[in-house]
Amino acid sequence: MHLLDNEITVAFLRYATILIVKMMLMSSITAFFRMRKKAFVNPEDTTSFGKGENAKKYLRTDPDVERIRRIHLNDLENIFPFIFAGFFYSMSGVNLSTALLHYRIFLGSRIFHTIAYLIPLPQPSRALAWMAGYLVTFSMIYRVIMMAFVTS
Amino acid sequence: MHLLDNEITVAFLRYATILIVKMMLMSSITAFFRMRKKAFVNPEDTTSFGKGENAKKYLRTDPDVERIRRIHLNDLENIFPFIFAGFFYSMSGVNLSTALLHYRIFLGSRIFHTIAYLIPLPQPSRALAWMAGYLVTFSMIYRVIMMAFVTS
Amino acid sequence: MHLLDNEITVAFLRYATILIVKMMLMSSITAFFRMRKKAFVNPEDTTSFGKGENAKKYLRTDPDVERIRRIHLNDLENIFPFIFAGFFYSMSGVNLSTALLHYRIFLGSRIFHTIAYLIPLPQPSRALAWMAGYLVTFSMIYRVIMMAFVTS
Repeated sequence: MHLLDNEITVAFLRYATILIVKMMLMSSITAFFRMRKKAFVNPEDTTSFGKGENAKKYLRTDPDVERIRRIHLNDLENIFPFIFAGFFYSMSGVNLSTALLHYRIFLGSRIFHTIAYLIPLPQPSRALAWMAGYLVTFSMIYRVIMMAFVTS
Repeated sequence: MHLLDNEITVAFLRYATILIVKMMLMSSITAFFRMRKKAFVNPEDTTSFGKGENAKKYLRTDPDVERIRRIHLNDLENIFPFIFAGFFYSMSGVNLSTALLHYRIFLGSRIFHTIAYLIPLPQPSRALAWMAGYLVTFSMIYRVIMMAFVTS
Repeated sequence: MHLLDNEITVAFLRYATILIVKMMLMSSITAFFRMRKKAFVNPEDTTSFGKGENAKKYLRTDPDVERIRRIHLNDLENIFPFIFAGFFYSMSGVNLSTALLHYRIFLGSRIFHTIAYLIPLPQPSRALAWMAGYLVTFSMIYRVIMMAFVTS
């Protein structure tokens, strides 16, 4: 049986690819904001803006760039566990509608987390968005653990 | 043949889920210490502690919070390669007891690494804990490479 | 059918293991440069160099160490999406030579990115190296999305 004959694994793949694309876009947004805010971390990145002391002033941290980098790191910390858990969860014998509910809440939570972080919305918006995705991942992990520890 | 008909892949899944849960807990511990130490990075996170200058003083780095964040990042850098290597290693035709030895040493090394980092224990405790997991991962990667480069 | 009966998945495995090894080496290089430059972040790491104020002076950031850490983080941000996309891409019905082209460009782009970051080469060397790997990953994701959204 092929891995992708399982319709839940295919559903997982849909949500997972959207999440990976969303996470990868953070790289481009960071690069865009570094250019726009002229805030770089490597000396070789500033040479097109001038020589010597003139270029040095662009070696600085900018609050908006740092904010986007925190979103990116938060994505890494949360989306990687989702990919792991969601993949094996799709093989755990769960029914499709329950699986879709998990995948959709997670995707929604990460999109809302990014919006809440970027604007930024007043807390606890971002905290609750993060928490929703965190709990959904644990719910999937619980089922994977049940499967992995009981089936043998 | 289903992916989880392989008892070594199921064994991998057990250790991998524990490691993912351990890594995810670092997020909660970071949040807990940020609250307890009142050390935040986003202005919107401090508004419940006061207005204006009163809130601004909580925008600071705290050594304990930074320490936990370093453990989290170290987990990401090490557990992600383990998940990759351990998954394909489980299909490499290795025998179960050798595989379990690898998975157990890795899990033990990461738990001891976290304890050594948190307390902190004098060096080289943390360095050796990290090294054990690092070498075990390379041992698994070696077998995966043998399989991937020789079987075709 | 076994996962590794697919010759494209085996090819993926070859490039992916090389990339994981390359990423893991960044940990060792960081540790090596921390020792050589005597630039540490944890107080317990400096005790072998002296006591009290004498040890404290080694708690500092060093530009070369930070540069290597940025390469490591950039690897995490880019190689993890490659592993995800490249794995499922290998099952997408793509032909072997197209898949190999993608895997090879990605591997080349990451090796050149690291060289350009380490020396450092003048920009846009590093930016173009990063961009090549980024676009190749999107090309694979595009095919995975086509497969995941159309096959059901």
